[in-house]
Parts: sequence; structure tokens; C-alpha cells
Amino acid sequence: MLECLEWPNHKQMFARIGTMQAALVLTIILSALLSALAQKPHHCKSPPYLQGKLAVNFPEGKTMVYEQFYYDAVEERIRVVATGKEGGHDVFVDRLLLFREKVYFDIIYHNKSCIKNSFEAAFVPIAIPLDAQHMAQVVLGSLSAPAQGLLVNSWVGSDAELKANYSLTFTEFGCIPVVTIYHIDGLGHFLSSFFDMVVGLEDPTVFIPPPFCSSENLVERKDGKATNLFTALL
Amino acid sequence: MLECLEWPNHKQMFARIGTMQAALVLTIILSALLSALAQKPHHCKSPPYLQGKLAVNFPEGKTMVYEQFYYDAVEERIRVVATGKEGGHDVFVDRLLLFREKVYFDIIYHNKSCIKNSFEAAFVPIAIPLDAQHMAQVVLGSLSAPAQGLLVNSWVGSDAELKANYSLTFTEFGCIPVVTIYHIDGLGHFLSSFFDMVVGLEDPTVFIPPPFCSSENLVERKDGKATNLFTALL
Repeated sequence: MLECLEWPNHKQMFARIGTMQAALVLTIILSALLSALAQKPHHCKSPPYLQGKLAVNFPEGKTMVYEQFYYDAVEERIRVVATGKEGGHDVFVDRLLLFREKVYFDIIYHNKSCIKNSFEAAFVPIAIPLDAQHMAQVVLGSLSAPAQGLLVNSWVGSDAELKANYSLTFTEFGCIPVVTIYHIDGLGHFLSSFFDMVVGLEDPTVFIPPPFCSSENLVERKDGKATNLFTALL
Repeated sequence: MLECLEWPNHKQMFARIGTMQAALVLTIILSALLSALAQKPHHCKSPPYLQGKLAVNFPEGKTMVYEQFYYDAVEERIRVVATGKEGGHDVFVDRLLLFREKVYFDIIYHNKSCIKNSFEAAFVPIAIPLDAQHMAQVVLGSLSAPAQGLLVNSWVGSDAELKANYSLTFTEFGCIPVVTIYHIDGLGHFLSSFFDMVVGLEDPTVFIPPPFCSSENLVERKDGKATNLFTALL
């Protein structure tokens, strides 16, 4: 046993130091690589249940719509209650989109009527598309003190289906949408600001059509209008 | 001494209970009032030392300028380094504004020259003007988890000097600017997004004109052009 406790000779010692150095260098390189991979902003997907508010600026700033929306990516359902002004007149839409059933309901409470439409669009979850390019990571406000700043990532890309270029700003932590800008050829800029976002759903019954949607007050239409998440929220 | 330790009679006891109740009610009312006052968003002033970045969208989105700025409200100095595109050509401005001395320097490093201008504007600190109206308090992102949201206040008002209506969004905590929109009559919307804000100054020498600004390379002008914080940052 004694030889184990003996001091190594110089040759052995240098060999050991060499091995230790190599292991150390390898560890440093590996951890640097791993941290670089971990720190690189990733094409994230928003939480499956979300609710929040949205202000949409339509091209030329002439129309502004405020929306309360509820989002369920598990059962592929969206409810949007939108109020705003278009030109001179008020706009009010209360729409429930059921993507799996490929129908949406326009719910009119004041006369308890309901318009049921069919549509063909696939559900697209709120996420950074995989082909989007990372543009910048910035802090809104300041990280100089707690609760004064928000770390966000901006991504740009183009959507062939919408014929649009987009810029998406989502939080680094939580993948919550903050601002989206879509520039659609021939239409202009659609600027959407998300706020008061809550992860989860306060009231899951918002996705159940009200009783009068299944009675004689229901008007069925089959316009087959393509509706995706983007046009649903507009 | 004994009478002090005696039990009070019923009359005394009810009188004491009455006084205690009144004091309790008063305390509750006062603290409710104080908390209401404390919770109401106030016309805040940004920290005296700030540095950060700024993206300015000029009307019709045709011009976009990125700025790095340094702000010292104590000695009333601003340094702005702006790069961008105006129409087809690149823009680069490196400007140091000394409001107390009523001069500003345009610093041109590539040929080590300097243009000194005089101006008349008073220093206006970054703040919510006292006559601005509170519009909304919202969360950018979400407060559902830490580091996912930012509480901000939006204020609106009009500036007689600039002939502009404005909308200012500042953080609730820290009074850090996030977004400002100025609609100037006849010019259009100027949208400024602030980011990567730091409370404090990394390098206070940015407010000292470089050596070549006091030598034969200095060109002095007296155009008397009014410059305030707003036009300085544009």
C-alpha cells in the first residue's frame, strides 16, 4: 500500500498534470459550448393556456381594436371579444373559434342570436416559427433594479400563406408575446401589442357556446372562409 | 398607586373601548387613504443618470434611427450617437449637448473636426409632464411568473411648444421610459422605443468634448436653433 502514498517521480507528476490540464480544458470547452447553446434564444412556443389583452393598430393608424382573448392550444380553441372603431362606426365582435370542429360562432348577446360558420384553417399555436431569424435580444426598461425591466427577443421572417413579413417580440422567459408586426403586401402594417397576459385560464367555460347557440336562434353559414390564428385575432 | 391597578368600572370601560374603536377606525381610514394615494400612478421623473438605446420610427416608417444616448439631469448634459437611414442615404450624428452652457457639439471623428453650435432651449428632464393624464396601467408580458412581465403606465397629453400630442409609456417601478409617441401637427407620428436602459453612467467622460473640439478644427456656429430634449434625441 505504501507505494500509493509515495510521491510520484517527476515524469509521473508531469503526466498527471498534463492529464488534469487536458481534462480541465475539455471541461471548460464543453461547459462553454453547453452554456452557449443554453443561452442562445430558441424558437419558443407560448404556454398552452393563455388569456390577455391585445391592441391592434390597423394600417395607417386609422383603426384601432382592443381585444380580450382566451387561448387553449390543447383543445385548439380561441375566444376573442373585440371592440373598436373602424372609420366612423363602432365595431364589436364576440367570436369563438373551435379549430378541431372547424366551426366558429359569432355570438350576439343583445338579441341572443348566434351565427355559426365553417372554416378550413389549421390551428397554429402561438410560437416563434422555426424558420424565423433571431434579430435582437433587448431589455424593455432596465435591469438596474428588480421589476424595472423585461428581457425580450425579436424575431423576423416571412409567412408565405399570409404573404406577409413579420417581426415578433416575445419574452425570453415564458415565451409570452409582447409585440407583433405583420406587413402584408398591399395592405400595410398590422401592429399588435399584447398586455395583461395571464398564463392559465380564469374561466374555461368561455370556450363553450352559450345555450342560445344551439337553439332556433342559430344561423348556419358555410362561407368556407379561411381563418387562422392571425386573422382570428384581427 | 393601587387605584391605578384597579379594574375600571363599566362606564370607564365602555369609554375606553369607544376611544379604542375610534382610534382603530381612524387608523384604518388613514392607512386606506395613504395606500390609495401610494397606489395611484404618479407623474414620475426618471433617474438623474441614465444611458440606453433608442429606436426612432419617423413618420410613415420611411426613416429609422438607432441611438445610443447618455443622460445627466444633474449637470444637464446629453450625448447622442445616432445611426440610421434617411431615404436612400446613411445618417450618422454624434452630438453632445451642454444645456447649462447653451452649446452643442457635433463631433466628427473621421477627420477629427467639431462643429460648435449655440442654442437657447431649456433642459427638460425625462419625466411625465404634470399636466399629462393617466390612461392605463398594464403589464407587458405576464406577471404569472418572475421575469416574465413589466408593469407600465401610459400617459397622454399635449405639448404646446412642440405643437404635439403625446403618449408616454414608462415603467411603474423606476420611471424608466419604454415607448413614447409624438404626433406633431403636419409632420406625423414619431415612435421612440427605449431599451437596454441602465440607471447610472458607465463612462462619465462622454460629456467632455474630445480634445480636437477646443483646437483649430473647431467650427463655431450661432444658428440659435431651439433644441430641447425631444429634438435632441430625434
